[in-house]
Amino acid sequence: MNAPTPTPSLATALPGELRRSLAATLGERFSQSAAVCQHHGRDESPFAVMPPQAVVFAESIDDIVATAQLCNRHRVPLIAFGTGSSLEGHVLAPEGGICLDLARMNRVLRLDTDDLSASVQAGVTRKQLNAEVRDRGLFFPVDPGADATLGGMAATRASGTNAVRYGTMRDQVLGMKVVMADGQVVLTGRRARKSAAGYDLTRLFIGSEGTLGIIAELTLRLYPLPEASAVAICNFDSVKAAVRTTIETIQYGIAIARCELLDTACVRAVNAYSRLGLRESPLLMFEFHGSESSVSEQTQAVQQIARENGGQDFTWAITPEERNRLWTARHHAYFAALQLRPGCRSLTTDVCVPISRLADCVGLTEADLAEAPFPHTIVGHVGDGNFHVQMLIDADDARELELAEQMNRRLVARALAMDGTCTGEHGIGMHKIDFLVEELGPEAIELMRSIKRGFDPNQILNPGKLLRP
Amino acid sequence: MNAPTPTPSLATALPGELRRSLAATLGERFSQSAAVCQHHGRDESPFAVMPPQAVVFAESIDDIVATAQLCNRHRVPLIAFGTGSSLEGHVLAPEGGICLDLARMNRVLRLDTDDLSASVQAGVTRKQLNAEVRDRGLFFPVDPGADATLGGMAATRASGTNAVRYGTMRDQVLGMKVVMADGQVVLTGRRARKSAAGYDLTRLFIGSEGTLGIIAELTLRLYPLPEASAVAICNFDSVKAAVRTTIETIQYGIAIARCELLDTACVRAVNAYSRLGLRESPLLMFEFHGSESSVSEQTQAVQQIARENGGQDFTWAITPEERNRLWTARHHAYFAALQLRPGCRSLTTDVCVPISRLADCVGLTEADLAEAPFPHTIVGHVGDGNFHVQMLIDADDARELELAEQMNRRLVARALAMDGTCTGEHGIGMHKIDFLVEELGPEAIELMRSIKRGFDPNQILNPGKLLRP
Repeated sequence: MNAPTPTPSLATALPGELRRSLAATLGERFSQSAAVCQHHGRDESPFAVMPPQAVVFAESIDDIVATAQLCNRHRVPLIAFGTGSSLEGHVLAPEGGICLDLARMNRVLRLDTDDLSASVQAGVTRKQLNAEVRDRGLFFPVDPGADATLGGMAATRASGTNAVRYGTMRDQVLGMKVVMADGQVVLTGRRARKSAAGYDLTRLFIGSEGTLGIIAELTLRLYPLPEASAVAICNFDSVKAAVRTTIETIQYGIAIARCELLDTACVRAVNAYSRLGLRESPLLMFEFHGSESSVSEQTQAVQQIARENGGQDFTWAITPEERNRLWTARHHAYFAALQLRPGCRSLTTDVCVPISRLADCVGLTEADLAEAPFPHTIVGHVGDGNFHVQMLIDADDARELELAEQMNRRLVARALAMDGTCTGEHGIGMHKIDFLVEELGPEAIELMRSIKRGFDPNQILNPGKLLRP
Repeated sequence: MNAPTPTPSLATALPGELRRSLAATLGERFSQSAAVCQHHGRDESPFAVMPPQAVVFAESIDDIVATAQLCNRHRVPLIAFGTGSSLEGHVLAPEGGICLDLARMNRVLRLDTDDLSASVQAGVTRKQLNAEVRDRGLFFPVDPGADATLGGMAATRASGTNAVRYGTMRDQVLGMKVVMADGQVVLTGRRARKSAAGYDLTRLFIGSEGTLGIIAELTLRLYPLPEASAVAICNFDSVKAAVRTTIETIQYGIAIARCELLDTACVRAVNAYSRLGLRESPLLMFEFHGSESSVSEQTQAVQQIARENGGQDFTWAITPEERNRLWTARHHAYFAALQLRPGCRSLTTDVCVPISRLADCVGLTEADLAEAPFPHTIVGHVGDGNFHVQMLIDADDARELELAEQMNRRLVARALAMDGTCTGEHGIGMHKIDFLVEELGPEAIELMRSIKRGFDPNQILNPGKLLRP
């Protein structure tokens, strides 16, 4: 994994004065329990556990400010933590330090139904927000597989199944309150729908992976629940036919709400894990939003495109329960795949390519995977040109890990050659630091370093992530 | 206008070595003609002419690189120039220096119909791009009033009448090539529809107003021309009733493509300038995009909302010629207003507020304007909560200018108190530097300064704009 090996110095205790100050300021919200540190030193990446030396459970912006000031004074790493669902090692502590757990900051601060917006603390999860706004006729569209915190989703520029229509976290945040490394609190934007006021600090913190500041509060856009919606599954003989259907749907400008690909292995895993009876061939799961008649038009148009590509008749999920069951199963595809090989770790790829190259990219990747000695699935937000290969490896078998890494390197090279990106939505973390350099070149990386130096001169914020130290 | 007065040192000639080097490198593309400099020292702001000391007509990235390197070496200001349609003094040269005119870089470099994207040089204008992609069934939606260059539109985070449905420049740029102050060329993104790869340099340059780098090339999203569209005008008894109609339309989630407000004074000006016969009362101009049936549904729903707010029956623009004439008239509203007072300059406001506060904000502003001694119009992208007051002042009358500035200050204070922004789409330029501080606070400004220091350590790029030197 090219992971930095924790250096022996990490094992040294935190400076006594820092410990005493944190304990005095935070009381029981400061913990050095080994179990707590272990829990905060792993995520859904294939990396080994890298625990922090202590955990702070922030309950307010003041807690974040106090912790940042102390860490900055003592030059000790500070790592923001939401739910630990990163796939790229974002929350690991390769250099030790303090983990800042934001899960207790879980209040919806204001809900502006008339403005279609809400302000939340960073620890509110996407499901919690949706539960709180649904009876106002609103929803928040970004839905990575996990029930992640909105702060973590902003920090990694997350997206998910609705991005093809509603966009990613980049598009949903009107403004944030961010705590800087030195404890300064910065407001990045207000509640107007658009603004041309100065450098776009909001977008700069979105995707900065905890390396530039700690996102404490966010003001988010919400959307009216659609008047009508429909969910359908369409089976194909090949992944390629499913992908071609997607490409044509996008090119026709049909505003599908969701368009998710599952290959046969993934369908099998989902059937087993979520007790579904989906036909086990490559399939697309569609969702359509709009008025009754517009949903009907969209479904007819897409069914027609699918037929021309050899797709079966749509199977409809009619009741809310059926739909919910289906999308929950899709969101659990990651965990379903893990069950294909009990005890395994997953190495999950995340390339995204221009849609015209998607069929080629997926086809070449399938061919490359044909001889792999480990189980694997393909799942994708194909309407965006984004797909994931999940490789289920024995993390203790260096050869398997290396084969999976080679496969990932070839896939990233393929995507970059197609003018795509190494990461559509999972971020850089510890795993793609070199890919980022390949993708944008050393000049862009130098600009990123210059921003980092200005925002976090002591380099305490999430060291070893996104940029090499 | 709080404009910095050009200091006497500006009148000094450029360093001889710089002049000789630019002339040797660029030949006729380097000009010190007084007429050329005068032409490049004014825009559509109310500021007096502030000419640069020389103009470079770049024809390639190499020209930009050579110019930047020379300016950086000699610590001479470098100011990017598109069409000079800024309303906030972005292209003026308060400290002299070199104006970099990008209008000759006007080639569409590639058109990827299947990916709904195009790569263009920075000097391509929005109308040129639309002319080149229309026969592929595509269009580019961002449309400020002027036929600005796409580089300039990105630099100021422009939007326009379609933003309510399609978003602003922020949402349309997949990646850019940017020339830095030291001549380094940076790629900020590739052609994938989404990416989570590193800090969002693309969004950082969008809205940076030429102060962080020179945008040389852009890859832009395009959209399929809608299957059907409709354009309608609806007259109201009051601006407030028109605004209420807008607010309810947005809150219902109706995906209108355009929703533009004109007050009575603006309608009169437009009638006179564009020889139209619009009924002279406050009105909304709507455009609807979709399938035939969805357009029909949208128009019925909005007509119903308008009726409940006392709106008249829709007047339809049926033929392409009628529609074109109407939208051209809307885009010329700025010039139409100028004709209300021949020889005047316009001071144009640009606040944007959360939509729930829009009726209050417009109503209080109308009341505040009632006693103004100069003609004024109100026009707005009201679906975004954004509106402009155009105050037509005698720029030589210090009292009028000060009254207009006072009015603008009160309006910005009102918008900020409503959690809005001082600028929805025109940018900061030289005019709103203090408002930006009020809006986001000194902590955010300090971060912006830190970015500026890292990207442009010699402070040569567009000095005196966005941030105080």
